[in-house]
Amino acid sequence: MTKKRKVNAAILIIGNEILSGRTQDKNIAFLSNWLNLNCGILVSEVRIIPDVEKIIIKSVRSLAKKFNYVFTTGGIGPTHDDITAQSISKAFKKKYGYHKKAYKILEKYYGKEKFNDGRKKMAKMPVTAKLIINPSSAAPGFVTKNVLSLPGVPSILNSMIENCKKYLVKGLKVHSKTINIFTVESNISKELAIIQNKYKKFVDIGSYPFFRSGKIGVSVVSRSTSKIKLIHVNKDLMTLIKSKKIQTLKT
Amino acid sequence: MTKKRKVNAAILIIGNEILSGRTQDKNIAFLSNWLNLNCGILVSEVRIIPDVEKIIIKSVRSLAKKFNYVFTTGGIGPTHDDITAQSISKAFKKKYGYHKKAYKILEKYYGKEKFNDGRKKMAKMPVTAKLIINPSSAAPGFVTKNVLSLPGVPSILNSMIENCKKYLVKGLKVHSKTINIFTVESNISKELAIIQNKYKKFVDIGSYPFFRSGKIGVSVVSRSTSKIKLIHVNKDLMTLIKSKKIQTLKT
Repeated sequence: MTKKRKVNAAILIIGNEILSGRTQDKNIAFLSNWLNLNCGILVSEVRIIPDVEKIIIKSVRSLAKKFNYVFTTGGIGPTHDDITAQSISKAFKKKYGYHKKAYKILEKYYGKEKFNDGRKKMAKMPVTAKLIINPSSAAPGFVTKNVLSLPGVPSILNSMIENCKKYLVKGLKVHSKTINIFTVESNISKELAIIQNKYKKFVDIGSYPFFRSGKIGVSVVSRSTSKIKLIHVNKDLMTLIKSKKIQTLKT
Repeated sequence: MTKKRKVNAAILIIGNEILSGRTQDKNIAFLSNWLNLNCGILVSEVRIIPDVEKIIIKSVRSLAKKFNYVFTTGGIGPTHDDITAQSISKAFKKKYGYHKKAYKILEKYYGKEKFNDGRKKMAKMPVTAKLIINPSSAAPGFVTKNVLSLPGVPSILNSMIENCKKYLVKGLKVHSKTINIFTVESNISKELAIIQNKYKKFVDIGSYPFFRSGKIGVSVVSRSTSKIKLIHVNKDLMTLIKSKKIQTLKT
């Protein structure tokens, strides 16, 4: 067995409706959690951009160079504002046109009579792309180099995600451990910095305030690819919490 | 009165907790809606990045050059992972240290005795920055050149937003009109593209599928800085909808 390495990804959300605040994004948290849990892939950057060809091309090229994988969401439907497939073809100088297999899938799904131009458009993509099968509404996603293109509708995206697996090399999973405590951040910030410094090569410790049942608290989240290091950090954190007589929240 | 022009902005979300999917972002939609509605400022790009100094510096510099304003959220609290203020100081080569006015505000809020090192850290920022007053938890946001830095906790950010207004030049507001219809996108995609093309210089038309009460529908959203052009587009859309005998959803 070869030793796993760190694998990262970027998410590129393509859509005026997210940028304008009209629609609340739900794909970022889903993709990020799924990728880490199932593939050990760490999402390291997210961008949200408008439906503008030259911006899509520039962003795809830049992110595809920087990260192992890029996941795009949105812009692969039948209407004029769906320009992801065309833009990705241009970004990688691939021929854009009817993808034979995608065309067959859609023609079978709709039936020859109902397979109109709008629906045919969903078979247009880089002609050499690999397909991501869509079990809920047929129109497939596609893989161009290290870029995986998915639809924007969360329920459809979620139904397709398992079909991305075969295109992904698995990496080291990031484990996390959360301790919720009833205190203010400034009460523990100094000691937390010392613990973080002690484990800086192996563990990332984050501190996030919360408000629950009228009380102020802090979630201390430790993240690491090493479970053993997480146990060590947890021990140090519990010592700090006990020494300060801080109440913990059982979840 | 001078004629208003288009003013744009980027949002830079700084925080591992959003990237990892642990926390669902709520600031993007809020900021984007508020900026357009109150200031006529159009959010044109969003990035979500980790709490890593060199990535923050690079992103801030790049976005500050490309857009009229940059709003950062997150990373201005008292703990070791709050490195936004320090990173922005470095990005613009500004001295990082105690901001006199911020120090006074926080000292008064906590009282001299309870003003510990963690809390003092929240007064550290580019020393020449302008402050964004925080009515809910005192620790101010700050303005460095065209970059406005706000906290990540949505309720605190929301309470501070009105205090950003004085630092912003207002632009042309984007108006929008939504028509919800019971049809599939491919039934109207051809005609929609013709209408979009007719008004391409003035109006952006987006098409977004929805599922409501077990029925499939499409929200057709038109966006423009011109109210008159929106009325024209709306008329064309209603003609299309009537000619196809499509049912609309009253909202």
